[in-house]
Amino acid sequence: MSMPDLLAVRSFLLDLQQRITSAIAGVDGQPFVADHWQKAPGEPLQGSGITQILEQGQVFERAGCGFSQVRGSKLPPSATQHRPELAGAPFEAMGVSLVFHPRNPYVPTVHMNVRMLAATPASGEPVCWFGGGMDLTPYYGFDDDAVHFHQTCKDALAPFGDDKYPRFKQWCDEYFYLKHRDEQRGIGGIFFDDFQELGFERSFAMMSAVANAFLPAYLPIVERRKATPYGERERDFQLYRRGRYVEFNLVWDRGTHFGLQSGGRTESILMSMPPLASWSYQRPIPAGSPEEQLYKTFLARRDWV
Amino acid sequence: MSMPDLLAVRSFLLDLQQRITSAIAGVDGQPFVADHWQKAPGEPLQGSGITQILEQGQVFERAGCGFSQVRGSKLPPSATQHRPELAGAPFEAMGVSLVFHPRNPYVPTVHMNVRMLAATPASGEPVCWFGGGMDLTPYYGFDDDAVHFHQTCKDALAPFGDDKYPRFKQWCDEYFYLKHRDEQRGIGGIFFDDFQELGFERSFAMMSAVANAFLPAYLPIVERRKATPYGERERDFQLYRRGRYVEFNLVWDRGTHFGLQSGGRTESILMSMPPLASWSYQRPIPAGSPEEQLYKTFLARRDWV
Repeated sequence: MSMPDLLAVRSFLLDLQQRITSAIAGVDGQPFVADHWQKAPGEPLQGSGITQILEQGQVFERAGCGFSQVRGSKLPPSATQHRPELAGAPFEAMGVSLVFHPRNPYVPTVHMNVRMLAATPASGEPVCWFGGGMDLTPYYGFDDDAVHFHQTCKDALAPFGDDKYPRFKQWCDEYFYLKHRDEQRGIGGIFFDDFQELGFERSFAMMSAVANAFLPAYLPIVERRKATPYGERERDFQLYRRGRYVEFNLVWDRGTHFGLQSGGRTESILMSMPPLASWSYQRPIPAGSPEEQLYKTFLARRDWV
Repeated sequence: MSMPDLLAVRSFLLDLQQRITSAIAGVDGQPFVADHWQKAPGEPLQGSGITQILEQGQVFERAGCGFSQVRGSKLPPSATQHRPELAGAPFEAMGVSLVFHPRNPYVPTVHMNVRMLAATPASGEPVCWFGGGMDLTPYYGFDDDAVHFHQTCKDALAPFGDDKYPRFKQWCDEYFYLKHRDEQRGIGGIFFDDFQELGFERSFAMMSAVANAFLPAYLPIVERRKATPYGERERDFQLYRRGRYVEFNLVWDRGTHFGLQSGGRTESILMSMPPLASWSYQRPIPAGSPEEQLYKTFLARRDWV
């Protein structure tokens, strides 16, 4: 890994953000607003980023897609649990992260994130690893959508070894799990972290393949479902289920929780929050309803492909 | 502290819950629903409770008031940071906790909690301490309300020493603070924990005085504001500010966070969540508006009495 390598990753990520927001704006009809930000000198984390956000669109009620690049003089302990030799090393991290909350309850919410971290221990070579993934959270489940999403993820990973999809699919199921509800966040997808086993070039290529699979994995589902008629019942259930999204992100998501507690940029981190969410006590789920089917059939760890 | 002492605390707390829910139901016109629950054998925490909840009332959109009593064979490390001699001791905890979310944005959200913890170290006398407090979170600020709320808290603590109100007022300001926003949750109130310095009888009396001050502190404000006309603008701001309530409770509140991560009863813990909350990116606050005044004048650490 060298300076040109880092620039190549940065350039890929900035282009990725543009490609995704352009495509989504095209579907919605409303453009994203881009907010370029920079951490003030003296703040614990130094860095800058571009937060792109589309709010109250036709298809998307809130869609955020952020690029950020941060530098720190010391890797935080949470990042070096498995790599004690890097404790306290200077580091650089960059990534693209997105969460899209559609208006129509038949269109699932989606999350995608790709990231790279490079650290330079006091004595030794720079170390670099990649992470990423995507996962889908439907309010009303469709087999076709789940199969398509997982198949696209699987196909993207296939050139990097047959073991990747099953490993990362399981990792995703384990990560996007609300322990306090004993519920999966959605139908899963893929998730990986701390990845360097293919070397810099091939690991970067794998992260890129995952990132490039995002639009083909998600857009056909949006197109298929965005005009489905719905009423107050479906809207109500969507708002209630969005409460679970809030719970996961604020209680369990390591990036969110760590970011908020350690001086990350709050408004960029919380662009993952839904535009509107509701809570009610022990909400009844009618037997045999599509809402019950979501819990029974879709919020379960299943092999979709 | 003896068995009769524990029964006296339990009896006080159950009666408190009844008095508060009766008074609030009287104001609202809709009764609370009581849900008696018990943890299943084999779960990490043993215990039972009564969750009382009023949803979609006339005055309160969501109001939860819970009593719970739990027993454990080992105090968790988070509870014994300041008392290493109690690490791993069997314990019993009970309390009443409430959060009321009114419908009218001119009526503030309120939180009150009183609790007792008793632990028995392997060699030694049982140790018992009390905690509690209340705090007010307005959407639109009124000096009169803030002064009344704080004065009632101060009066309740006066018989227990002049130092109590200033100490507990400051503790409240420090606790109900959203570090990731650099914002206070509301106008504060009082908060204390780990309290035993007056001995069992007087400490229990102090906790009771705080609990008994809740209705006189809050109800006059509800009566004063509940018929204030409001429109979409105020409702919208209320939903946005409720998002902050969610952020505080899920990210920073030790009870909520610890409870959810350690096997507490999720639906009872999360009765503090608002019925509906919204998020938007860098929402503009018009200069000179009442919304700006909330931030500048009320979400600040101030001496109200």
